Amino acid sequence: MLAQGLLIRRWLLAAPRTSQGQEPRAACSSLVPALQGELDKFGGVSVSLDASQPAHRLDPTSFQRHLQDSIKQWKAEGRIAAWLHIPIQQSRFIASAAAEGFTFHHAESTSATMTLWLGHGHSRLPGYATHQVGVAGAVLDEDTGKVLVVQDKNKTTNAWKFPGGLSDQSEDIGDTAVREVLEETGIKSEFKSILSVRQQHNHPGAFGKSDMYIICRLAPLSYQINFCTRECLKCEWMDLVKLATTSHTTPITSRVAKLLLYGYRQGFDKIDMTMKEYPAVYSGMVYRLYHRELPVNLEN
Amino acid sequence: MLAQGLLIRRWLLAAPRTSQGQEPRAACSSLVPALQGELDKFGGVSVSLDASQPAHRLDPTSFQRHLQDSIKQWKAEGRIAAWLHIPIQQSRFIASAAAEGFTFHHAESTSATMTLWLGHGHSRLPGYATHQVGVAGAVLDEDTGKVLVVQDKNKTTNAWKFPGGLSDQSEDIGDTAVREVLEETGIKSEFKSILSVRQQHNHPGAFGKSDMYIICRLAPLSYQINFCTRECLKCEWMDLVKLATTSHTTPITSRVAKLLLYGYRQGFDKIDMTMKEYPAVYSGMVYRLYHRELPVNLEN
Repeated sequence: MLAQGLLIRRWLLAAPRTSQGQEPRAACSSLVPALQGELDKFGGVSVSLDASQPAHRLDPTSFQRHLQDSIKQWKAEGRIAAWLHIPIQQSRFIASAAAEGFTFHHAESTSATMTLWLGHGHSRLPGYATHQVGVAGAVLDEDTGKVLVVQDKNKTTNAWKFPGGLSDQSEDIGDTAVREVLEETGIKSEFKSILSVRQQHNHPGAFGKSDMYIICRLAPLSYQINFCTRECLKCEWMDLVKLATTSHTTPITSRVAKLLLYGYRQGFDKIDMTMKEYPAVYSGMVYRLYHRELPVNLEN
Repeated sequence: MLAQGLLIRRWLLAAPRTSQGQEPRAACSSLVPALQGELDKFGGVSVSLDASQPAHRLDPTSFQRHLQDSIKQWKAEGRIAAWLHIPIQQSRFIASAAAEGFTFHHAESTSATMTLWLGHGHSRLPGYATHQVGVAGAVLDEDTGKVLVVQDKNKTTNAWKFPGGLSDQSEDIGDTAVREVLEETGIKSEFKSILSVRQQHNHPGAFGKSDMYIICRLAPLSYQINFCTRECLKCEWMDLVKLATTSHTTPITSRVAKLLLYGYRQGFDKIDMTMKEYPAVYSGMVYRLYHRELPVNLEN
């Protein structure tokens, strides 16, 4: 699948060409520089309608004419796709672009990105983010064998579950778990491992997108509960055996409670996916990799 | 964090109210019914600008006046947020909404959703999908101890890696792995387990969003390689020990090769997160849950 990737060179489109024998386009086309774009390595052209773009002052009708000319030129040059990045201040251009066949690739906050496939066959352009990520923290006090559980407010059935919530943009899995546990229960904790991953599609709470729900094992750094009454109805340290056997819980909480009990009795190495950090290909970035522990002879 | 959730009742806004002693609003406001919205259980109001909405035929200026009136009314009624769902055919309204303070929540294909926070303090509205999900398949032939690897085209370093790619919308993790392996190598396979999860943020290939990259263990159902020359430079069945020790690979491939080797020698129960399917709370849906196997006494 094509990825937009890095833009490789600045590419100024020449003024729209006219077919032999035709009258050259008058008015705006000759007075306003044509749309300036950047080529990507996949054969697409990317246009930002910000203040650096001479066309950004046009009225929608003149813009649409320029876009028409540019599309003709891009096709003639063999471009396979066009991308328009439109700041919300220029959102009057969205309808013009839509009239020329552009659709939304994505939009967020104060900008929208629209695309038009110019190549043969169906579009091979990559999609946008497909998942929200929710994370819960199972904080187990190894000294007492008790685990931190809550009952959500505003739910029809008051089932015990692990505190958790949605990851913020660019937030690591373990950081979400620790933050949500603190916000909901007042308990400080630290990340130990990933215990389970659940995938669910067409999720009503994710605007029809998919939901990835991850439960982490956390170790407590404080013990005094001070729970958020806006989010939780109840919060307590519950015996792990009780949580693993009660019917007042969700199926996934029950399974992870059994898993925790197994780890508590037999060693957490039975149940953990632990984390290591690595430098990423992209300069200055790191990524976090989770898998089962390797034995020492393979680790070295 | 607030979630949009289910809309609970149809809510027709009355015509905009006028303050005592003021002239009533003339023209459009009195001729066109006010914006029709639905209340959600979090105190927000949601307006679809589709053909069922009387205002959908308005010009942008008249629409903006109606929106101004509606916002005043929503605030007076204590609504904490307004959502506008705008089909691309009505995208001329986007600039009007932006002028009243609405920003993009998300947009895709032929519709955009904009929001305006009306409550106290900063917005507590939920975000949109934050992650793309990529999946690779490590197809291990247990009879030979060889694993299926490829070298990507269009990469600067030709490192051996597992075939894989981005999940389509609503596609399960294992299904992506099996599909991508087939597309890239011609090998048929079946899902066995999740071996590793990598999270990386601000990903250039994800339009600045986060990337979740999952490697699955697959078992081969066919053996004759017929690789995709558009995506791959090379493809072969490689001895697992060689992959675990070669420098011609990526760090994550190398680690997962070691993990596979550990499982191949000591039993895959050492490395696997296996999958079970469960009915979801939402009628007719299922979810897939991945975690370490439970011992029999806890499973029952």
